[in-house]
Amino acid sequence: MAIGPATLPVLHPVNGVRLGVASAGVKTAGRKDVVVIEMAKKSTLAGVFTKNAFCAAPVIVSKEHLNQGKNRFLLINTGNANAGTGEKGLKDAYACCSALADAAHVNQADIMPFSTGVIGEPLPVDKIINVFPAALDNLDENHWAEAAEGILTTDTRPKGACVQFIHEGQTITITGISKGSGMIMPNMATMLGFVATDAAISSELLQSLLVEAADLTFNRITIDGDTSTNDSCMLIATGQSGAVLTQENEALYRLFKDALHQVMLELSLAIVKDGEGATKLVTIRVEQAATQEEALATAYTVAHSPLVKTALFASDPNWGRILAAVGRAGVENLQLNDLQIYLDEVCIVENGGRADSYTEEAGKKVMSQENILIKIVLNRGIINETVWTTDLSHDYVTINADYRS
Amino acid sequence: MAIGPATLPVLHPVNGVRLGVASAGVKTAGRKDVVVIEMAKKSTLAGVFTKNAFCAAPVIVSKEHLNQGKNRFLLINTGNANAGTGEKGLKDAYACCSALADAAHVNQADIMPFSTGVIGEPLPVDKIINVFPAALDNLDENHWAEAAEGILTTDTRPKGACVQFIHEGQTITITGISKGSGMIMPNMATMLGFVATDAAISSELLQSLLVEAADLTFNRITIDGDTSTNDSCMLIATGQSGAVLTQENEALYRLFKDALHQVMLELSLAIVKDGEGATKLVTIRVEQAATQEEALATAYTVAHSPLVKTALFASDPNWGRILAAVGRAGVENLQLNDLQIYLDEVCIVENGGRADSYTEEAGKKVMSQENILIKIVLNRGIINETVWTTDLSHDYVTINADYRS
Repeated sequence: MAIGPATLPVLHPVNGVRLGVASAGVKTAGRKDVVVIEMAKKSTLAGVFTKNAFCAAPVIVSKEHLNQGKNRFLLINTGNANAGTGEKGLKDAYACCSALADAAHVNQADIMPFSTGVIGEPLPVDKIINVFPAALDNLDENHWAEAAEGILTTDTRPKGACVQFIHEGQTITITGISKGSGMIMPNMATMLGFVATDAAISSELLQSLLVEAADLTFNRITIDGDTSTNDSCMLIATGQSGAVLTQENEALYRLFKDALHQVMLELSLAIVKDGEGATKLVTIRVEQAATQEEALATAYTVAHSPLVKTALFASDPNWGRILAAVGRAGVENLQLNDLQIYLDEVCIVENGGRADSYTEEAGKKVMSQENILIKIVLNRGIINETVWTTDLSHDYVTINADYRS
Repeated sequence: MAIGPATLPVLHPVNGVRLGVASAGVKTAGRKDVVVIEMAKKSTLAGVFTKNAFCAAPVIVSKEHLNQGKNRFLLINTGNANAGTGEKGLKDAYACCSALADAAHVNQADIMPFSTGVIGEPLPVDKIINVFPAALDNLDENHWAEAAEGILTTDTRPKGACVQFIHEGQTITITGISKGSGMIMPNMATMLGFVATDAAISSELLQSLLVEAADLTFNRITIDGDTSTNDSCMLIATGQSGAVLTQENEALYRLFKDALHQVMLELSLAIVKDGEGATKLVTIRVEQAATQEEALATAYTVAHSPLVKTALFASDPNWGRILAAVGRAGVENLQLNDLQIYLDEVCIVENGGRADSYTEEAGKKVMSQENILIKIVLNRGIINETVWTTDLSHDYVTINADYRS
């Protein structure tokens, strides 16, 4: 079960990036579970990583290698997260980098490893290493769709996004793929994102662009800003389009920023829409908050509430549950009388209680949709924030109660 | 579905307290839904209430009346929470108090009202007022079990606890009843507790005893310390046993404190065990934390995690999910290598990864039990804290997706 069409959009190649896929049988025989992404020489690379105190071995290694070596390969395996694996996990991650470096004639530090899957099982290093020749043979700039398939775990569909725009006669491409589906509570379900552009961008600027875009996209589908042990999002700039991005070139900078935001929003919403057992995409928008902190606390408390989520699953406009969630979000001196809550355009709460104009029929109609906006107007200031989530269904319980069996 | 036996223990009467029950048809015709609890003159009364910013109308009125009048009646209705009802809700709560005051020949301020049920619907005041004569006729010191039935909503069973002890030849009784079953996330599911003793205790001492006991019991089954719009727990002391409790009388004080803690722990664990769709009672104990704050943050993050909860439902010793939850609890400079995690006595995590001694069989055996202890040893200090929760099952989704229909 997932929301909206399962079709992958056209993913245009990015000059300087080639992708190769192979089947190592990490967890399931025959499944494509190893992906290598080759970056042309002189590419720049940026990364954002999980804030979990126990970040997985590959995350530690990727952080260490990022911009220390020559940024030549991303290496992804599924089926095993290599997390909670102690010293051995670190050795295993280095061993994979080393073997790929040998096979591809680069240095170990040129490789950033990523793993996703079951936590706490030893990584089957030999199985993974054995398929490096096959993965390298498979390298092709047209393999974005294959790579999108190759990084999935419990996802029901591949996820990708692509935006192209023209600036002073040059076409600039941004293409990306993502992975993740534990969206009711993504804190522990790995989210991965790999995005590339053919613009030329300095490491520093690339990093700040990625941080800013991730904060409004990948980090807005995460409850409490928490992340799993393995979450990572990488942004590659090969420079092969000839376009050079700087903050001084305002027109190009703005175009690029908007396009990057769009790609990353599509990639992160694709994760929400493939939420485990999800039947609805729910946008929670908090308006007129006094601070960003209270806007996000309110939005996440509502997004987070199992009682709100089950009401969404049931298409039940149980606005009392939304109201109670807002009330326990910890916003100081929040006045019930100042508050308005809307389902799409239907006002459900105002003047301290149910809106006079509200009818159960109108509420029910919105709640029956596949896409629902819950808008909460605090009337305390000028800050607006948006987060995205899903409902909580029987299938969520089934998927997560059965995952390891 | 609920955990353990459904039988109510013997609830000894408390001299000076009488309870009466009636059927007003607030939501369901024929259901016992109005309870009055009469306190003898000169009783003292203490109360703890929800911290939700939008506390319900009856909570506002009870806080106002507590110790302002003569503390003569508690009035409880189910079927309607009178929450999110604005000014009208307040008027309705006062109207109920006024009508009961007239019928019982006391003052309006002598009455503390409590409501639980659907949020945001107007309280059917006339229906409730009409049954006050019947409820008062029904007053009897032996009606604790009937009252325990009368305060239920989605609960599947009545909840009560009673402890008696003898001090210098005097028998002192503490009897209580509770209500609540939204235990996966109790924040929005009303918890009510009504406890009485025949000891004589000053208002100030009674309040401090209640606050301390509630903090270790009712507040430890609450995620993040948050509460619903209607949560309340009241403690009555009639003084009719002749025993006078003071902090100076250390022996009696200690006996009483222990007995009160036991009664309130039983009442709050009864709520957990009747958790919506619950199949397991899970105790989460964090040991050797540096601060109470980090101990509770860790315990609640684990208790709170849908991925841990679904693994508990599946009897799956997926310790990686517990580890990941500990890692995102926000404890600063937490070192994976210092951490130990146990399922009952089975060590599952140590030295940065899965314990060498761990076997899947041993983990599975513990996870199959109806009562499970998850013990997390942080090795950072000397603070220990315990919270209680349940698993997350299919029935939780069913109950909460269907509640209003």
